[in-house]
Amino acid sequence: MTAMDTARGRARVAEPGEGIGLDELALATRNHGLPLEALRYDVTPPGLHYVLTHFDIPAVDPASWTLEVTGAVERPLRLTLADLQRRAPATGRVLLECAGNGRARLEPRPVSQPWLLEAVGSAEWGGTALAPLLQEARLSADAVDIVFTGADHGVERGVEQDYARGMPVAEALRPETLLAWSMNGSPLPPQHGAPLRLVVPGWYGMAQVKWLTRIEVLEEPFTGYQNATAYRLATEPGEPGEPVSRIRPRALLSPPGFPDFMTRERFLAAGPVQLSGRAWSGRAPVTRVEVSTDGGRTWADAVLSPVDPAHPWAWRAWTCTWTAEPGPAELLVRATDATGGTQPVEQEWNRQGMANTLVQRVPVTVFPPGD
Amino acid sequence: MTAMDTARGRARVAEPGEGIGLDELALATRNHGLPLEALRYDVTPPGLHYVLTHFDIPAVDPASWTLEVTGAVERPLRLTLADLQRRAPATGRVLLECAGNGRARLEPRPVSQPWLLEAVGSAEWGGTALAPLLQEARLSADAVDIVFTGADHGVERGVEQDYARGMPVAEALRPETLLAWSMNGSPLPPQHGAPLRLVVPGWYGMAQVKWLTRIEVLEEPFTGYQNATAYRLATEPGEPGEPVSRIRPRALLSPPGFPDFMTRERFLAAGPVQLSGRAWSGRAPVTRVEVSTDGGRTWADAVLSPVDPAHPWAWRAWTCTWTAEPGPAELLVRATDATGGTQPVEQEWNRQGMANTLVQRVPVTVFPPGD
Repeated sequence: MTAMDTARGRARVAEPGEGIGLDELALATRNHGLPLEALRYDVTPPGLHYVLTHFDIPAVDPASWTLEVTGAVERPLRLTLADLQRRAPATGRVLLECAGNGRARLEPRPVSQPWLLEAVGSAEWGGTALAPLLQEARLSADAVDIVFTGADHGVERGVEQDYARGMPVAEALRPETLLAWSMNGSPLPPQHGAPLRLVVPGWYGMAQVKWLTRIEVLEEPFTGYQNATAYRLATEPGEPGEPVSRIRPRALLSPPGFPDFMTRERFLAAGPVQLSGRAWSGRAPVTRVEVSTDGGRTWADAVLSPVDPAHPWAWRAWTCTWTAEPGPAELLVRATDATGGTQPVEQEWNRQGMANTLVQRVPVTVFPPGD
Repeated sequence: MTAMDTARGRARVAEPGEGIGLDELALATRNHGLPLEALRYDVTPPGLHYVLTHFDIPAVDPASWTLEVTGAVERPLRLTLADLQRRAPATGRVLLECAGNGRARLEPRPVSQPWLLEAVGSAEWGGTALAPLLQEARLSADAVDIVFTGADHGVERGVEQDYARGMPVAEALRPETLLAWSMNGSPLPPQHGAPLRLVVPGWYGMAQVKWLTRIEVLEEPFTGYQNATAYRLATEPGEPGEPVSRIRPRALLSPPGFPDFMTRERFLAAGPVQLSGRAWSGRAPVTRVEVSTDGGRTWADAVLSPVDPAHPWAWRAWTCTWTAEPGPAELLVRATDATGGTQPVEQEWNRQGMANTLVQRVPVTVFPPGD
């Protein structure tokens, strides 16, 4: 399909000072972020959870839809939604984040979905565990990767494809990996993958395949576009780079005070201010959240909410009291997890703007009390 | 509050060729649009309806929240949500559209929320009619405007404010004007105005006040910011301009085929293609939808779905069969309503990019069948 060749090629990086293009804007208006004041909700209300759709939201008829389990298995399966819903139920409260979160803050800017910091959400996913289904299909002992394919179809950098991601067998067999048909107790909305999606706690969003139609077991590594080309950590053109996998630690602040409509600049009254937000990591528990109210010169420990054993894959709330003095201030927050990994204060750039956890900066103007 | 003065001033218009700025992007990532393939749903599923929040989504506690009816009335009222929910129920399926829809396509571009074309949605709003409540409060015979104030607070062009809009008494007293606490049969989500919002069928979104806390009856026209400064149709700086009111006619096409991730360019196979979409007007019934598949040189009538008497304020579906030949094509669609008003093929510019209904253009590449 030669007409598509015009779109072929490498990920583009914006020129210095180049404004956001209409192509990036078209993605920003299609794909939804979490307005940061919605960090206040433990479970993100319907419609405020981030959504990233590579192609179009497909129109899937749940009555005729089936899920195929195929490839290196002894017993291939084909299941309807009713078949799946007769299986043992399982649920999980899971923090999801797009691997491209924060991309539009990088300099130079990788040209793709231009997330600032809002590509996150917390949901209660309901369905059934994936592992028992794979065991029933009797995986080959030589199985390496499991490929999850969705009903969404399009072209990306010249490659026509159904969206498909491979995942190592060990990750797919984790007991918390779900086939989900509900979100926050309601049927999965179209944009979140109805009628069935994958939920792999701890991994960035590219692994959470929506509109799932096929699970294929491979005895060699999957080399499809979304694994081999997209979602790599590379700095030089042509460099293969490491694959993106687990979510790196991040904390976000719910911006205090009230905003200016256009600039989103924040205003608040002097005095004690309760700063609050969320922190998470997909690799290990968050062990520390630090807040700076002086642009990063000094940092103070925030108070982390206790780990909830019922929700090990959820984000955690944090709070920190700040005595705000009149004048301008810049607030920063950073998380550290049990691996010792933390967030950089200076950017760690890569060509596709993946898994970048540059700290959030929230400039505020404090006005005298009673002003 | 002198610090806010930095944000004071007139709406800005972008320089020729100026890319989208980070301020516009921050609005685009906060405010949600309808991905155009979701035009397929008669009633927009949760989370796909457009949302425009001027400031932050406020945290309103429904248990302590009350609605005040005050001003030029004989019997001021204060009602809880339970009080309202004991009143006669009323529902309406209503098309809503942001007055700024299409703004980012204008040249030069008014700098504000940079909608392309996706600031629309269709919902079933449930609540109670406004008119009987106003009648119980006994409006002054001299009442002119009714002011609806929300709990959302911020600064806009230097003016600190709770979001507030005035509406002529006659519009507020229309039987279809609702105080709504549900959307598509579920409690109102936070971003759509929980616990209570106004729904005024036929008007652009600025009239649909969310997080409603106060209804004040005035015996003179309301001169607050959102009526007197924002939401005006002016071309020169300083010109007051006409107020924005009813939704002008518009048709949108659900882009056919499949997309390129980054460019959103569309690809489809040659042969008969069923084009489809929606059309609406807030002033009068839509009487005609026309489609051009040759960039606007020729137009053909689409088939409009019958008017549904149960849903006079809903959008209408339209379809049109196109025999696509291999090669590039540009698809356009335009609506006409019973006032005779239609959509311009060349832009009709105004400084704030309000109520602009420039026709949608969808470039597509048709590939030979079997390619």
